[in-house]
Amino acid sequence: MELFNSVESNVKSYCRTFPEVFHKAKGAKLFNESGEEYIDFFAGAGALNYGHNNGYIKERLINYIQSDAITHGLDMYTKAKREFIQKFVDSILTPRDLNYKLQFCGPTGTNAVEAALKLARKVKKRTNIFSFMGAFHGMSMGSLAATSGIGSRQGAGVPLDNVTFIPYPVGCMGNIDTIQYIETILTDDHSGIEKPAAIIVETTQAEGGINVTSVEWLRSLSELCNKHDILLICDDIQVGCGRTGEFFSFERAGIVPDMVVLSKSISGYGLPMSLLLLKPELDIWTPGEHNGTFRGNQMAFVAATAALEYRENTNMDKGTKEREEFIKNFLNERIKPLHKDFDIRGIGMIWGIDFSLLGGEKSSKEIVTRCFDNNLIIERAGREDVVVKIMPPLNIEMDVLEEGCKILEKSIIEFLSNSEYGIAIESKIEETV
Amino acid sequence: MELFNSVESNVKSYCRTFPEVFHKAKGAKLFNESGEEYIDFFAGAGALNYGHNNGYIKERLINYIQSDAITHGLDMYTKAKREFIQKFVDSILTPRDLNYKLQFCGPTGTNAVEAALKLARKVKKRTNIFSFMGAFHGMSMGSLAATSGIGSRQGAGVPLDNVTFIPYPVGCMGNIDTIQYIETILTDDHSGIEKPAAIIVETTQAEGGINVTSVEWLRSLSELCNKHDILLICDDIQVGCGRTGEFFSFERAGIVPDMVVLSKSISGYGLPMSLLLLKPELDIWTPGEHNGTFRGNQMAFVAATAALEYRENTNMDKGTKEREEFIKNFLNERIKPLHKDFDIRGIGMIWGIDFSLLGGEKSSKEIVTRCFDNNLIIERAGREDVVVKIMPPLNIEMDVLEEGCKILEKSIIEFLSNSEYGIAIESKIEETV
Amino acid sequence: MELFNSVESNVKSYCRTFPEVFHKAKGAKLFNESGEEYIDFFAGAGALNYGHNNGYIKERLINYIQSDAITHGLDMYTKAKREFIQKFVDSILTPRDLNYKLQFCGPTGTNAVEAALKLARKVKKRTNIFSFMGAFHGMSMGSLAATSGIGSRQGAGVPLDNVTFIPYPVGCMGNIDTIQYIETILTDDHSGIEKPAAIIVETTQAEGGINVTSVEWLRSLSELCNKHDILLICDDIQVGCGRTGEFFSFERAGIVPDMVVLSKSISGYGLPMSLLLLKPELDIWTPGEHNGTFRGNQMAFVAATAALEYRENTNMDKGTKEREEFIKNFLNERIKPLHKDFDIRGIGMIWGIDFSLLGGEKSSKEIVTRCFDNNLIIERAGREDVVVKIMPPLNIEMDVLEEGCKILEKSIIEFLSNSEYGIAIESKIEETV
Amino acid sequence: MELFNSVESNVKSYCRTFPEVFHKAKGAKLFNESGEEYIDFFAGAGALNYGHNNGYIKERLINYIQSDAITHGLDMYTKAKREFIQKFVDSILTPRDLNYKLQFCGPTGTNAVEAALKLARKVKKRTNIFSFMGAFHGMSMGSLAATSGIGSRQGAGVPLDNVTFIPYPVGCMGNIDTIQYIETILTDDHSGIEKPAAIIVETTQAEGGINVTSVEWLRSLSELCNKHDILLICDDIQVGCGRTGEFFSFERAGIVPDMVVLSKSISGYGLPMSLLLLKPELDIWTPGEHNGTFRGNQMAFVAATAALEYRENTNMDKGTKEREEFIKNFLNERIKPLHKDFDIRGIGMIWGIDFSLLGGEKSSKEIVTRCFDNNLIIERAGREDVVVKIMPPLNIEMDVLEEGCKILEKSIIEFLSNSEYGIAIESKIEETV
Repeated sequence: MELFNSVESNVKSYCRTFPEVFHKAKGAKLFNESGEEYIDFFAGAGALNYGHNNGYIKERLINYIQSDAITHGLDMYTKAKREFIQKFVDSILTPRDLNYKLQFCGPTGTNAVEAALKLARKVKKRTNIFSFMGAFHGMSMGSLAATSGIGSRQGAGVPLDNVTFIPYPVGCMGNIDTIQYIETILTDDHSGIEKPAAIIVETTQAEGGINVTSVEWLRSLSELCNKHDILLICDDIQVGCGRTGEFFSFERAGIVPDMVVLSKSISGYGLPMSLLLLKPELDIWTPGEHNGTFRGNQMAFVAATAALEYRENTNMDKGTKEREEFIKNFLNERIKPLHKDFDIRGIGMIWGIDFSLLGGEKSSKEIVTRCFDNNLIIERAGREDVVVKIMPPLNIEMDVLEEGCKILEKSIIEFLSNSEYGIAIESKIEETV
Repeated sequence: MELFNSVESNVKSYCRTFPEVFHKAKGAKLFNESGEEYIDFFAGAGALNYGHNNGYIKERLINYIQSDAITHGLDMYTKAKREFIQKFVDSILTPRDLNYKLQFCGPTGTNAVEAALKLARKVKKRTNIFSFMGAFHGMSMGSLAATSGIGSRQGAGVPLDNVTFIPYPVGCMGNIDTIQYIETILTDDHSGIEKPAAIIVETTQAEGGINVTSVEWLRSLSELCNKHDILLICDDIQVGCGRTGEFFSFERAGIVPDMVVLSKSISGYGLPMSLLLLKPELDIWTPGEHNGTFRGNQMAFVAATAALEYRENTNMDKGTKEREEFIKNFLNERIKPLHKDFDIRGIGMIWGIDFSLLGGEKSSKEIVTRCFDNNLIIERAGREDVVVKIMPPLNIEMDVLEEGCKILEKSIIEFLSNSEYGIAIESKIEETV
Repeated sequence: MELFNSVESNVKSYCRTFPEVFHKAKGAKLFNESGEEYIDFFAGAGALNYGHNNGYIKERLINYIQSDAITHGLDMYTKAKREFIQKFVDSILTPRDLNYKLQFCGPTGTNAVEAALKLARKVKKRTNIFSFMGAFHGMSMGSLAATSGIGSRQGAGVPLDNVTFIPYPVGCMGNIDTIQYIETILTDDHSGIEKPAAIIVETTQAEGGINVTSVEWLRSLSELCNKHDILLICDDIQVGCGRTGEFFSFERAGIVPDMVVLSKSISGYGLPMSLLLLKPELDIWTPGEHNGTFRGNQMAFVAATAALEYRENTNMDKGTKEREEFIKNFLNERIKPLHKDFDIRGIGMIWGIDFSLLGGEKSSKEIVTRCFDNNLIIERAGREDVVVKIMPPLNIEMDVLEEGCKILEKSIIEFLSNSEYGIAIESKIEETV
Repeated sequence: MELFNSVESNVKSYCRTFPEVFHKAKGAKLFNESGEEYIDFFAGAGALNYGHNNGYIKERLINYIQSDAITHGLDMYTKAKREFIQKFVDSILTPRDLNYKLQFCGPTGTNAVEAALKLARKVKKRTNIFSFMGAFHGMSMGSLAATSGIGSRQGAGVPLDNVTFIPYPVGCMGNIDTIQYIETILTDDHSGIEKPAAIIVETTQAEGGINVTSVEWLRSLSELCNKHDILLICDDIQVGCGRTGEFFSFERAGIVPDMVVLSKSISGYGLPMSLLLLKPELDIWTPGEHNGTFRGNQMAFVAATAALEYRENTNMDKGTKEREEFIKNFLNERIKPLHKDFDIRGIGMIWGIDFSLLGGEKSSKEIVTRCFDNNLIIERAGREDVVVKIMPPLNIEMDVLEEGCKILEKSIIEFLSNSEYGIAIESKIEETV
């Protein structure tokens, strides 16, 4: 690790929470160089919905490489790309009666967000974008302007313009009727806020602190966009690809955003890839207007095609629902009773335990450290990182899921027992025997 | 191809020049679905300096995947990353007496440029950046602001600020003493132009039209930066990794930029990866200040490590020099005599034939189309795309190189013979018999 | 008038509401070329708190000009400027225990706002400014960015950056606890909104629609600024100089803003002048850093000095209170009963009748047109211009004030009687006999 | 003066060069409180082309005030405004065959520049503006972005965007063919510089250092604008109103800018006023789109009308030519021989002596200080203030002009004699006996 410390830039982050050199991984488990096993409740920050090195995908990937099929990433026509497009249309779009065109962007989520914002501004000939407080959309200058974290924004070194932040309906501004707020801004000729080309939204904020919007709110937002001729962009980078129980996180509301941004788990194997879905009438791009060398990551296409097959073969959404039930029950029945001040929230297989009222950032940090010491990889999210985030692979084995949850429980109990906050002893005794 | 047309966004670009569905590739050759062979003088836009599916790298990659070693891309410590860092230090930095820290960015060149610009602004507490007319640095908002192409810039949909464009010493502003120009701007208290945090430069502009700067100019630029406390950022995305005959394109001038951006061929296998080198004293990043999901593309690390070994094993820079000689001679002895109005320029294994005086964009387009019909993949660059760009893999077999050059020659002769510009017949007869 | 129509730019505005060529004026009356008399309830948009061509000031002005004292406007030391400074300190600052330095800006309100925003950013080294929805601060690019009217903003032709608009506690966002809203923005590390250098506020919004903030709100705002190290700038251009009953509009709340912007009535004679008051510790300007040719409008200084004397001699604040009572009573007892849907609000001698629920902009326009036909000059304000604004000179004679009010009443009655909205007849009969 | 020091903001500037309290003024002379006389070679920074308190104008002004004619500044129709418009059309526009509409802006030069830039952007729907290195156009945010002085720009506190600075053909970039430079920028699709809505130019830069462009250059610039559909804005604030020998400074080149900005001497009496001339087809303003309280400074209209009469009555342009001859001769025959390193330049009645090669800023400062001690008011301009600027009223009496010139000569001789630069003694003896 000395090499990392001396040669790798200080910007490195996740390795600080998990100070081990990892080497292998399978399913929901990671192994360090000595072979020690860790259960993974972080899933590559959401890039591993199908688990580490998923065997089904792996085989296809190796075959592809072995056959000397095209690897490089230019956006030329390839067999691999065509197969992915076909599979995506057949498996995802058509069954949902969705009519989107596909744009392959630079293989990072932020690059696809950049593309979406560019296109929205180009289509609507307006410069402003509405984004929500708590939002995370990426770190390159265009998407960073729509990202709310002050720490991230300060890195820009220049003012970040042309984005207006709107209170999110869940969280610290929860008492404001945000739809009415936007409606007033748009109709008041003295709001000072220019009508946006688009509103970009996460249906559930992950980095913002596991804030789940209601179905009603999403529908109202969609109607408002419609009414005011504003594009609705759904950033499904972290909570898409099945994370909330359906492929798209917005399906539960029955809305159809004008653009959808996918990345992270779309390749299914942790390979860099991003995808922008856009309604056909928005496709006014000129050739190469959003260009890049790696927009055709062929290996990712092969993996992504296999991943979609794997989803179907394993009836994944059903499995997600079952695991959601388990997690929800575990958190509500085993964690919540430990202290009255826990705030627990989530959807599908992304859940958070909020330590705001239990010491905040210091406590949440202690939890993830204790978990790591107990061989569970789990991260934090939210304002000042006060939320412990539970986000395992969607196909985690039930016993591994349970084991991970128990490590989390144990770590929390240890923390509470040694803290000023105390613990509801009865539940402790009851549960941990 | 109908599927691509109906479902893939109009933004697609390279596929328009090469309207074939490709499937396999090896070395300097691509094969379409029917198995037809194409010689590749484009090299994945510079991402394939070691050729398609390089065997040495391929083996290591397959072994890595087969062993279920870590695939996902978070910036955790991994064995694969450590091995790459060690190899890069030992093989590239130490022999050149360079002392850089390594920052792994989102796996696209533009993302590393974004990081470089952010860091420069943060370090120097200034918002302005100098970039050069003709420059290409990427398409996300921060790097797009430093990219000169009007077509690319118009896609932004908002004004692109905080960058000042400076005449490049080669090309249409070649008559201006650009160093003196910058010096005057910086010392004139009424220039209206804020002192920049950094100057970002390509030592040879690729997209700008294969413009090769002189060693003297690069040294003057470096001295000027030093004198005025401005950081020098070398964007070596396209012309680094050996393209000009040495690993870094700036080595020939004996200068040491404050930051160096690498991407494209760094992974050696066309896999998405980018790398920012920065002088240790600049490393004032806070953890995660430039974050991203795929900054640790492990497969790319494995490939990149193998690629550095391959460079050494095959004495690649020597081979590049030999091929450079061949290309230069071919262009000067076989192409140039065909018409007095050809402007031929280049360095290492990136060369251009400028058709400005021979019909411009229309003619260059005809050339690449004729070449493609003759099974040579070659692209255009430069202002209004008037330059035909020769950029094969660095390790292209000599006979394939020769064959490709002859296809190019043939295509040019056909073009000239059928054009209003005429052809110097003697040379034609002499050369093609 | 043909000359105006053919030669003067279409940008002209007030003349459209009052299509007469005016020639003379005295006190609260204007006279057109034919000598026809108009009562003035507009007071030069607030620039004539002491009435047209106030005799006391006029004499001093003529004497000054006749004596060939300095007229030009450079910021050299002059006797006239010194006398103004001394009078302002003795008459305004010292009695209120205020310790401000004086900055003379270009003689327009917008120029002083520009200076205030520049200085705030310079002092706090932050780029953002908070302004309120409904705010009007001027039309040059810096103050326009803090002005909320969409129509005004669209004239900029470029995005207006570095200002965040906050809901104002009165008006269409009245249901939001705006202090809590700001507090949350400032403490939430994911609000996306940069901490501002300053908050600029009108204690009563004039253009925004005669929205009067509460004393409690002003105190909370001041405390919030203090707590978060943010400067508080009071834009007292329209409602300062005695308009609300005291010289500064913020006196009623007992707060002391860090900067105060004065213009309009400061010269007392309608002459262009502006003044920025700043706490001494903020005075980090370098010489000439906010420069201009007319910052020393000597005639305005002479007039302004005389105006301050006139204020004292006539016990003006007391007179304002009396007239406030009259207006308030008239509006509540004679206008309000005419229709249940009138919203009447105001303070001191700035009052508004809101026609939002009575046909809006169309109705308010009809009222001011009817008034003009009846020889009363009165303007509109507010969102979509739905508010009829009553703003006579502060020293208007009581009988003229009453006459003007009766013209207004008559015009409203005529309007209602002929409208779909109907009129509460009883009150009509009762009141107008 | 203590009062000024303790109460007036540090931003004050001219008073620092002329540390006296002034009280009266007439023609080309100023008098301090003790009645001591100073010759004025500064003319209110160009606002007093007709001298201090010009008797012809003064009489009209006093009559106007005495008659209680309209004083306040709203843009209502008034007799005074109509008379000015008529006189301006008859006296200035018609004889020159110019067809402009008139826009009255906030009564500062910067405000009219703001209006011009807004309108250009609105008309052309482009955000960029070209301005020249060395330019001064004002200090409010919009015009400040087009002002080149670094000291002024740093006061903004935010990046100043949407303006590109172009080398001016005279001065430190004099070796560049600036027309060719602009042409290349506009036609190179990789210049990185967006086509501007307008080019704003001073035909002679005053603050930039008395840089006089050639007639050929102005014509080329005008043609270039025409060719590329770019508006040409002439900022004639300082060198218009007769300063260069004709009413408009651009008349000598026979060009017709699309917009012309006037201020400073337009009122003729030092009263705040500004005026934007625009070709009728550009007048797409909506009513009130560039608004302000003092756009109708009636007193300034009255003075301006009288000033135009005075111009005609006194055949002012002829007088200016005579004085130009005197100044030119004096500088070339009496000052230039004093030292080979003087650079003397100018046009009409604005001239500069450049001390760049004679100690620069330190020396020029000593000169103006010595002059002031010798009762001559003269200021500096140019890069680092190295140019002593001669700019008396246009109607200065010949003997006063000569006396002022001799004080300047004496001050320079004293300076040189006591300096390391030496003096050409012969000329000294010859000239000063």
